[in-house]
Amino acid sequence: MNESLVGRCARALGDMRCRRPLVHNITNYVVMDFSANALLAAGASPVMAHAVEEVREMVALAGALVVNIGTLSRSWIEAMFLAGAEARARRVPVVLDPVGAGATAIRTETALRFMSEVKPTILRANASEILAVAQAGGATRGVDATQTVEQAHGVAFELAGRSGSTVAVTGPMDFVTDGTRSVRVANGHALMARVTGTGCVASALTGAFAAVEADPLVAATAALVFYGLAGELAAQGRPGPGEFRVRLLDALDRISPEQIVSGGRVVEG
Amino acid sequence: MNESLVGRCARALGDMRCRRPLVHNITNYVVMDFSANALLAAGASPVMAHAVEEVREMVALAGALVVNIGTLSRSWIEAMFLAGAEARARRVPVVLDPVGAGATAIRTETALRFMSEVKPTILRANASEILAVAQAGGATRGVDATQTVEQAHGVAFELAGRSGSTVAVTGPMDFVTDGTRSVRVANGHALMARVTGTGCVASALTGAFAAVEADPLVAATAALVFYGLAGELAAQGRPGPGEFRVRLLDALDRISPEQIVSGGRVVEG
Amino acid sequence: MNESLVGRCARALGDMRCRRPLVHNITNYVVMDFSANALLAAGASPVMAHAVEEVREMVALAGALVVNIGTLSRSWIEAMFLAGAEARARRVPVVLDPVGAGATAIRTETALRFMSEVKPTILRANASEILAVAQAGGATRGVDATQTVEQAHGVAFELAGRSGSTVAVTGPMDFVTDGTRSVRVANGHALMARVTGTGCVASALTGAFAAVEADPLVAATAALVFYGLAGELAAQGRPGPGEFRVRLLDALDRISPEQIVSGGRVVEG
Repeated sequence: MNESLVGRCARALGDMRCRRPLVHNITNYVVMDFSANALLAAGASPVMAHAVEEVREMVALAGALVVNIGTLSRSWIEAMFLAGAEARARRVPVVLDPVGAGATAIRTETALRFMSEVKPTILRANASEILAVAQAGGATRGVDATQTVEQAHGVAFELAGRSGSTVAVTGPMDFVTDGTRSVRVANGHALMARVTGTGCVASALTGAFAAVEADPLVAATAALVFYGLAGELAAQGRPGPGEFRVRLLDALDRISPEQIVSGGRVVEG
Repeated sequence: MNESLVGRCARALGDMRCRRPLVHNITNYVVMDFSANALLAAGASPVMAHAVEEVREMVALAGALVVNIGTLSRSWIEAMFLAGAEARARRVPVVLDPVGAGATAIRTETALRFMSEVKPTILRANASEILAVAQAGGATRGVDATQTVEQAHGVAFELAGRSGSTVAVTGPMDFVTDGTRSVRVANGHALMARVTGTGCVASALTGAFAAVEADPLVAATAALVFYGLAGELAAQGRPGPGEFRVRLLDALDRISPEQIVSGGRVVEG
Repeated sequence: MNESLVGRCARALGDMRCRRPLVHNITNYVVMDFSANALLAAGASPVMAHAVEEVREMVALAGALVVNIGTLSRSWIEAMFLAGAEARARRVPVVLDPVGAGATAIRTETALRFMSEVKPTILRANASEILAVAQAGGATRGVDATQTVEQAHGVAFELAGRSGSTVAVTGPMDFVTDGTRSVRVANGHALMARVTGTGCVASALTGAFAAVEADPLVAATAALVFYGLAGELAAQGRPGPGEFRVRLLDALDRISPEQIVSGGRVVEG
């Protein structure tokens, strides 16, 4: 079963590189460059578009929509919901990254409203954001996770079951659940927390895999195993955070399906 | 004649580094950082400004205006046209990069309106965007060129003759035409397509050269030869896409006028 | 006295890394990525938020607010003043970076209004921007300093005394003054001027130090000594501008309090 899951993750990577899905990102200003380069390096085709006048057309061309609330404003929120509705109508998978949910009311409210109105295919967040979206209490400290990922796993399982969205909680140990099945991913490296936007990139990559893999649990798991392996490769030799980010992009280009099979540390259940 | 053109390109590089023209960019969020760093590395002086309240003043200080529609919204469109009109009134050269023209109506319409109202000095785009701007049919796939550059060359020649704008179509082989003369530039490297915003940077650099070289055909050719040589230098040793981008900035700092003369692969006609 | 000041700077670095202050940035699009990564590398915790709906809540969570006017628009100006007023009411230190003041009216006016209404704890700028904010005449050329830093020192001293803000003028020799005391910092490297946003990063780091050091003169000095030393370390071996930026982030992670004591080139008075 375990091998079967990493096998499916490996196949998803091959499919993604073969099909080069267009991933439509409505994301925050800070990580646009990094997200686009990460998607390109991984093998997908990124596009960023946020104007209310064009997001529906762009979604129609896309294999996945990734919505990230990291730098919100009113007109962007409107575009996020227009794009989300269009994506669901067209059965384009949607990933939500509720950056900073719990930190301010507009972020928490936007994330909650997106969960209920758009019902994203996958919610990808850190532990404190998951707690905020699940309204499970616990204050967030900016955009950094301050609660351990483990604490949020039970909440994520319940949230997935209740919302119908697959929930991926990232941290030292990633946890992916659709409310029935659960997967833990032990790949990754502590240096990833020293670079801005590594969580946002996890969400963008999740979109790329969701574009080619119909099972959201497998898509999210594949993205996190792949990304975690890239982080491990990039961290070899203990570079500083600047050099690590450069190598992370190189590693996204280099990690092969075979390496997912051989290096993926995935535990089901 | 061939040597004469690379000679003029080399002189334009020397002039640009000597005069350090201020290049006013109204560009998309994704590539602002990369474009500014590329202009600085090449020897120009970048400024980004998009507020309708200030773009005319900024254009008045600038040696060139570069307008890039990669992440549009209503207020930005207004600023683009204000800045474009001011630039033409002041005889400041204008470069248009119609990112994603053909993908959505607002992008295609904005590009077409900019061509007819502002009449940019130089239009720099990939093949599918050129086809969209020329209304020559052909759908674009996001922001990636899916038609071969060769197919767009005839259309570009006709568009340049009709519009009065010099047209630069970039791809594996670049094509520059003013509707009378044509130039092919064979410099560059495939890795450039693996980094976000390399096309946008081509447009920004074209602005830097247009600020110091009065003949738009020579300015666009000089920018593409220079940039292509930088790409070739950066690609030595086959780095990954992350490392390649770092080296590309270093190469923009390093390529000399002499290297343009010795390495420029330019064919006229 | 001299040793005492570098000692205090070294202690401030230790405190900052220990407390990891949340630094709330309302900054320009070009440098968001670089600023966030620089803050993370240095040991602080960055957050970017600009919506009028949330900036007051975010300031309430923050250890410092950094306002940078590099890419202005009306709604952002409103958010800057809301956040600034909230910060002062909560005694959260505020750093203003008046990017391009003097270049356009909206930038000069916004900077002047912020000085008089918000009274930032620290004003960090280059020489020509200081002259513009002090209304001391002298036109700016885009965002580059064209007047020597030395010329602006007298103006900065007078401005600090008059405004109550500590003023930090950066350049080949940095100058920090609160209108009574003055400090010169000789650390840094010419390559810092070849990378976009190095001035903006100086402001962001100043915010990180102001969050943990109550004396603004010491906080600004500590930030500039630390950052200058990082620049010197990154410049070893004379990398190109792309590689230099990568190494600068690595150096921010690496410079120790001990290196501030041994390498800080600070002269008081």
